[in-house]
Amino acid sequence: MGNREAAEIMNAPTNDKNMLKALAGEKQARPPFWFMRQAGRYLPEYRATRAEAGDFLSLCYNPELAVEVTLQPIRRYHMDAAILFSDILVIPDAMGQTLAYKEGEGPQLEPVRSSADLDRLETGRITEHLQPVFETLKGLRRELPPEVTLIGFAGAPWTVATYMVEGQGSRDFANAKSWAFSDEAGFARLINMLVEATTEYLLAQIEAGAEVIQIFDTWAGALSETEFNKWCIAPVKQIVANLRAKYPDIPVIGFPRGAGAGYANFAAQTGVNAVSLDTSVPLEWARDNVQTSCAVQGNLDPLLVVAGGEPMRREANRILETLGNGPFIFNLGHGFVPQTPPEHVEELSELIRNY
Amino acid sequence: MGNREAAEIMNAPTNDKNMLKALAGEKQARPPFWFMRQAGRYLPEYRATRAEAGDFLSLCYNPELAVEVTLQPIRRYHMDAAILFSDILVIPDAMGQTLAYKEGEGPQLEPVRSSADLDRLETGRITEHLQPVFETLKGLRRELPPEVTLIGFAGAPWTVATYMVEGQGSRDFANAKSWAFSDEAGFARLINMLVEATTEYLLAQIEAGAEVIQIFDTWAGALSETEFNKWCIAPVKQIVANLRAKYPDIPVIGFPRGAGAGYANFAAQTGVNAVSLDTSVPLEWARDNVQTSCAVQGNLDPLLVVAGGEPMRREANRILETLGNGPFIFNLGHGFVPQTPPEHVEELSELIRNY
Repeated sequence: MGNREAAEIMNAPTNDKNMLKALAGEKQARPPFWFMRQAGRYLPEYRATRAEAGDFLSLCYNPELAVEVTLQPIRRYHMDAAILFSDILVIPDAMGQTLAYKEGEGPQLEPVRSSADLDRLETGRITEHLQPVFETLKGLRRELPPEVTLIGFAGAPWTVATYMVEGQGSRDFANAKSWAFSDEAGFARLINMLVEATTEYLLAQIEAGAEVIQIFDTWAGALSETEFNKWCIAPVKQIVANLRAKYPDIPVIGFPRGAGAGYANFAAQTGVNAVSLDTSVPLEWARDNVQTSCAVQGNLDPLLVVAGGEPMRREANRILETLGNGPFIFNLGHGFVPQTPPEHVEELSELIRNY
Repeated sequence: MGNREAAEIMNAPTNDKNMLKALAGEKQARPPFWFMRQAGRYLPEYRATRAEAGDFLSLCYNPELAVEVTLQPIRRYHMDAAILFSDILVIPDAMGQTLAYKEGEGPQLEPVRSSADLDRLETGRITEHLQPVFETLKGLRRELPPEVTLIGFAGAPWTVATYMVEGQGSRDFANAKSWAFSDEAGFARLINMLVEATTEYLLAQIEAGAEVIQIFDTWAGALSETEFNKWCIAPVKQIVANLRAKYPDIPVIGFPRGAGAGYANFAAQTGVNAVSLDTSVPLEWARDNVQTSCAVQGNLDPLLVVAGGEPMRREANRILETLGNGPFIFNLGHGFVPQTPPEHVEELSELIRNY
């Protein structure tokens, strides 16, 4: 049995899962929930596994430990979905770009800034290099409770390109934008390489058992409308089309973080099944301008879960009330921060489950 | 003659100024323009004056040199407005909070995180401490060509509070938000102190000759809708009302950077005459949802001015065409970056002047 057939059996209709119902456009009395960065440093058991693994990339590429950290929050809080533990920069890593994570400093890459640099990237070993990720997904499908949906993910081309070009995190993305403005064809070549690599990577994730795909465009908010159409909407739309050509029913969640009023166009144009809203998005606006195109996911301020108590409960209820009348997945607007008390996550999870 | 009377004479109707016409809601065939951070490191003459002044705060508090750097871009490019050269953190400095600028690292402050810390702040010496700023404004009114409008400014309470509480720049504003969530009354006291101090500071700027006020809420985009209403819209609205109580006709520009769809509420509710749009705001959406409430200002990507040439001209024209049919001030979506070639600023200025 080939990967394709195996995936078709594993991905056979499972419409009894809350998460998949929401992504199919169904409103639910009790919306499904999961949390960005739900496997992370706020959990003591994560910190222990992380210490065992060594550096961050070693954890991403160790299927046994990556399965373990993905399952940890599910055991505690019984979310409706588990997201693969990995990193958006495994794609440049698989392309042979030098990548290192220095503790407390974020990723460091040897920058790619010219056509000659692009020529040196390897595009033929994505699937081979990322085998450990697919092993993690297969392990998760074996281990996850049947009602929990498995989400695979990748970074969107623009966001991955910013790291590849800047070589690190950036405030203004001066190198990436300067390249895009002064040599649009050259920069488009990088984006197209990333569309292809990401398609290949996500298809293999689906074949390994991912039931939903989320595409993270973390730095979409740095783009003007013209750039947003060109470097966020168009490549994400292409990836969605590529995935659907092979898996017509695979649900995709897009997260163009910071897109502001641009969320409406993103929802209407990319073909995604859901849009993940960052914390800044006004709820009634999202209900009237985004949820009209697709499901929405979000958008509690992760700092409210640090505070906990009445302010957290009030805002969580407001989100549930405003967005819960349409297809909706409760989530944060951005990932948990390390100082989040695990007992506040418990309180929040119970609030949503009992809604 | 008291300051008040002097200001009234200096601020006598000058509706022949393009900038003031736009702020009065007038559409103009050739919109006025100025650029955020137009006095800055991209200009060699700025770098020379800055070296003469010593550190950054010394330049802000040296009226002769601050006048000089404010005038430098006007001499080269003849913008319709000059903005006071100063910094949003002069308010905490005037309150006695320890503040230092380390080269290349941004501001460092002794954090304020409790009611006891607030008790130690001095609120009685704002006007006295900031005399050099008012001297700069008076010098500018003497030196500026009569057709050039003088803009004074301050940081909005939320943004200034983030620096006061975090003690430095931040990604997630964890300390400021945690304070606001866990002790709303305590954090509100800080915000109210800043409303009062900012009102006093801006009134003194108007008395010293500022013809327009811009309020920068640089970190508004980090706030959820509930927090945005509480910590951005409400305090800015209060400051606008306070200024209008004494100077009913003073035009105010608000800049809730990153507010996304929240720009519409900000424009409708704060009473500002214009809203400055960051680069991410879609133009037709701004025309239909923000320019319906007030004038708009913005929003060319500053990195396009690094690139220059056809991409810069195309986007500048698109902005002029889309927003120029209503009250509009051409500007950037964020400040110039140091690597901006001065000749590109010249080309952009000519394009707007000849529109």
